[in-house]
Amino acid sequence: MISTKIKVFAPASIANVSCGFDIFGFAVPNLGDFVEVWFNDTGKLIIESISGADGLPTEPELNVTTVAAQALLDDIGEKRGVSFNIQKTVKPGSGLGSSSSAAVAGAFAVNELLGKPFSRRELLPFAGVGEKLASNQLHFDNVAPSLLGGFSVVRSNEEMDVLSISYPKDLWVVAAHPQVEIKTKQAKRMLGRTMPISNAVIQFGNVAGLVLALVSNDYDLLGRSMVDMLAEPKRSKLIPLYDEAKEATLAKGAIGTNIAGSGPTIFSFCKGEESAKQVMNAYKKVYAASELEVNYYISKINPEGAKRVN
Amino acid sequence: MISTKIKVFAPASIANVSCGFDIFGFAVPNLGDFVEVWFNDTGKLIIESISGADGLPTEPELNVTTVAAQALLDDIGEKRGVSFNIQKTVKPGSGLGSSSSAAVAGAFAVNELLGKPFSRRELLPFAGVGEKLASNQLHFDNVAPSLLGGFSVVRSNEEMDVLSISYPKDLWVVAAHPQVEIKTKQAKRMLGRTMPISNAVIQFGNVAGLVLALVSNDYDLLGRSMVDMLAEPKRSKLIPLYDEAKEATLAKGAIGTNIAGSGPTIFSFCKGEESAKQVMNAYKKVYAASELEVNYYISKINPEGAKRVN
Repeated sequence: MISTKIKVFAPASIANVSCGFDIFGFAVPNLGDFVEVWFNDTGKLIIESISGADGLPTEPELNVTTVAAQALLDDIGEKRGVSFNIQKTVKPGSGLGSSSSAAVAGAFAVNELLGKPFSRRELLPFAGVGEKLASNQLHFDNVAPSLLGGFSVVRSNEEMDVLSISYPKDLWVVAAHPQVEIKTKQAKRMLGRTMPISNAVIQFGNVAGLVLALVSNDYDLLGRSMVDMLAEPKRSKLIPLYDEAKEATLAKGAIGTNIAGSGPTIFSFCKGEESAKQVMNAYKKVYAASELEVNYYISKINPEGAKRVN
Repeated sequence: MISTKIKVFAPASIANVSCGFDIFGFAVPNLGDFVEVWFNDTGKLIIESISGADGLPTEPELNVTTVAAQALLDDIGEKRGVSFNIQKTVKPGSGLGSSSSAAVAGAFAVNELLGKPFSRRELLPFAGVGEKLASNQLHFDNVAPSLLGGFSVVRSNEEMDVLSISYPKDLWVVAAHPQVEIKTKQAKRMLGRTMPISNAVIQFGNVAGLVLALVSNDYDLLGRSMVDMLAEPKRSKLIPLYDEAKEATLAKGAIGTNIAGSGPTIFSFCKGEESAKQVMNAYKKVYAASELEVNYYISKINPEGAKRVN
């Protein structure tokens, strides 16, 4: 059996976005997962290769990409086997939604291979199955932007109620990824199980403010709303030079600076490319004095999400 | 000394609005506080009369209206005495922001009497001083809509960061006020001091959804977002026939039904006047079988807030 190879890309993403713990996320360009798929005649899923990350499972029932793909294939009753080449340009444990881009790429790839039986949005639950394997929780705050592009608001993870929201055209993202790994599960555990109601109320106000800021292109309000009472106070301690980087980037004009997902990547929102460049320089200055290897990213938000690349 | 009398009205309001605990509120028409003021030659504040509510303090330093007025007079260094007639059409302990309309009316009245040294928005902190006397907390979720009209989002009570938000033109409000009194302080206490993070995340999603729903005129999303994990599960038990009223109004087409402030008033959002009338009938049917005295309200949101009436 000769089968056409199809290759897709699903982008990395930044979730939480300060106050929007588990509910806000946006896609970034250039980083993410490439997945190539083709039919094989074994009737099974086969991972032929994985590149770009160490230690990921090659057993299809343990790998996020193939588990998401299998969920779609099962749903539609597809019996043919599919082979996978997986190429990651986003590292696990970076805070950039590595498991979500892997899951989205798996579901998106087999949907393309089958001639698009599902709409883009209909792929959400399948990608969710992959994400759940990685994080033990059915969360769409990275999955949704990786699949749909742009900025996502997850009204309800339980009900898979995902909204796309507009944002300012000249909103830029700068991120610094110090090369230390933080496991999402570990980062979750350190938060405990409860939060003071007084802090929750502050968070409600900032969640509302951030949504209003994005839809009304209000950068000042966006900055005022980028306050997190829940994760940042605890998780920022795991990130080398976090306080210094936040202070330096805000001083250089960043609209807001916070933790990408559960870290260790730090991101800043900026107004326009010139400001973004200055903010990136501020990050570089902070980390230049350290021994750390740090990767830097600068871009607009990725508006398109997952896509076929050939 | 002969002084012109000036009379103002500050409307009642409904805060919390399901998920937006302490941060959302909107004004209603027809109910509220009338305050008449004129200069006297004693150099002191004097409450000449209070009507429409029993047991409110007539000592100026203990009354919300005069305390708010005094805050403004102190700020501007005004030494003349002012006399007050206070006429309430909203009852304390109803959940309809009685203390806030009292405070707003006090500040708004003396500002008019002095020839408007402050803009409408600049009256927020003075009204806040009155509100704090009543509730022991500096909260603007009732004060802001009573003063400004429309729908308010309090991004931060601490920073007095109050945003006005658009809402659908055909959004109607129906409310039922069973005549049992619930003290705000008591209703606060029963909530405890912490909430599970899992519930807070659900609330974040609904806060974001409700803001998006209002600014995008999305009634379906508005209904889906009217979920409260914090106050409703506990406080609804204090309100006679709450579950029955909620079920009946939703069955008759209400977009959402929840507690007004800390209760006991229940309110529903409806799309259009016809729907609102049917929902009001649903409330009446539920309470008709009871011994309770219940007041009903039906209106659009009050867009104008506090105003001079003569």
